[in-house]
Amino acid sequence: MKIAFQGKRGAYSEMAIRNYFSDGATPTGYDLSEEVCDALENEEVAMGVLPVENSIVGNVAINIDLLLQHHFFIIGEIYLPIKHCLLARKGTKLTDIKNVKSHPIALAQCHDFLIKNKIKGIPEFDTAGSSELLSKNDQIKDEGTISSSLSAEYYDLEILRDDIQKVENNFTRFVVFVKEKNIPEGLKQEKTSIAFSTNHNPGALLQCLQEFATHGLNLTKIESRPIPENPFMYTFFVDFLGSIHDKNVSDCLTKLKENTKSIKIFGSYPQGKF
Amino acid sequence: MKIAFQGKRGAYSEMAIRNYFSDGATPTGYDLSEEVCDALENEEVAMGVLPVENSIVGNVAINIDLLLQHHFFIIGEIYLPIKHCLLARKGTKLTDIKNVKSHPIALAQCHDFLIKNKIKGIPEFDTAGSSELLSKNDQIKDEGTISSSLSAEYYDLEILRDDIQKVENNFTRFVVFVKEKNIPEGLKQEKTSIAFSTNHNPGALLQCLQEFATHGLNLTKIESRPIPENPFMYTFFVDFLGSIHDKNVSDCLTKLKENTKSIKIFGSYPQGKF
Repeated sequence: MKIAFQGKRGAYSEMAIRNYFSDGATPTGYDLSEEVCDALENEEVAMGVLPVENSIVGNVAINIDLLLQHHFFIIGEIYLPIKHCLLARKGTKLTDIKNVKSHPIALAQCHDFLIKNKIKGIPEFDTAGSSELLSKNDQIKDEGTISSSLSAEYYDLEILRDDIQKVENNFTRFVVFVKEKNIPEGLKQEKTSIAFSTNHNPGALLQCLQEFATHGLNLTKIESRPIPENPFMYTFFVDFLGSIHDKNVSDCLTKLKENTKSIKIFGSYPQGKF
Repeated sequence: MKIAFQGKRGAYSEMAIRNYFSDGATPTGYDLSEEVCDALENEEVAMGVLPVENSIVGNVAINIDLLLQHHFFIIGEIYLPIKHCLLARKGTKLTDIKNVKSHPIALAQCHDFLIKNKIKGIPEFDTAGSSELLSKNDQIKDEGTISSSLSAEYYDLEILRDDIQKVENNFTRFVVFVKEKNIPEGLKQEKTSIAFSTNHNPGALLQCLQEFATHGLNLTKIESRPIPENPFMYTFFVDFLGSIHDKNVSDCLTKLKENTKSIKIFGSYPQGKF
């Protein structure tokens, strides 16, 4: 079963897929998030997996917007701890390393380690891609990459140091989604993600949230986003505990439809573990 | 008056400062956001300016966290439209360009333009930094950068194409902050930013939002963030219209203090224009 992700082999997204699925899954990398969605639309793959928030960097708005545009259904969420590793060609010692290539965010998160070890950071498109490039050039003896432990396996590199980022509690939340006709039977639906738009009046959001409380639903996430084309409206992204098949949830959604300009259900899925 | 920002000369942050302040301001770039805050703490600069949200990329959680750690006061907000330009050394034609350097996010936002013009994107740390590097090497004839129009001025480059990103309505929101003792007298306080933490019970957030409605306060932004060390608590980031010196606002904050675990006031400031 092919599962689409954005990135090169060994990317954190692929780690998330490997942690979540059994061996029957075949992670398939695409350059762009748009291509992940297109591949699912065209049924080249059975599922898509995209990051939607990172504890340090914040929400991945571009991917949430893609889910808003498409008619997919979220069937799972994955929390992956991000542990950056320093990788190098086999036989290299830490003291040999002069330069390290990686994505600018990973370089920034490992800034203190690089300074301490007098290593220069050099930007690349992505973490796993840096490791792929390094693996292809056996002339380079003084270079490393910052990437996942999985990419060390794929590109036959050595992990010189593990967990080198300064920031603690660095985790990324991914969602797993399918075409609506392919929602698995008997899916354990513990958590639901929706978006809705309201006019920007005092109390408009409150009225919506009142419905969640009235129906005994506990929010696990709320985020507002202005709609740049319409400064007098807001879109809210809300996750709550409950299934769309529960009576209190469907009653709440019916009430919300009356009070909002538009509403979108992203999916109902088992709750992921931190 | 020195104003600290993160980035090289000509960065979008510097454009934001130049748009907002009169000629008396001297934008001063630092490599890291942490250094911007340290410079303000040490009074090397009078003010700091950092991006806190982008309409496409999402919230800049790392900068919001820095404001949570420090005791600064937000005295303004700036909305800057992000218009990426293709820059090159003077005399270069678009058809000469084979490679373009920039930050990976800018390259991704201009992906369609690059494909159409058969240009290869090469990652760099930041947009303005790419332009600085290009300006220093007069041997390179086939290279461009994607950066702000301001960086063309600084680095004596030519704008070959303007507004080349695919995404529409790409804007970044910056906040301007000072040490608490330096809040300007007579500051027009139209909007207030706060953060508060509550236990993760059904209705806990609702109870807080009820206070805003009871006191006639209109929210312009709400975002929840889990506290990874404590999965049973959430931090909420809320902006609303009103000044901390208004009676209804101070009454509301008093009530909120009773219902929350902790509360932080980031500042009260004039509302920025989109």
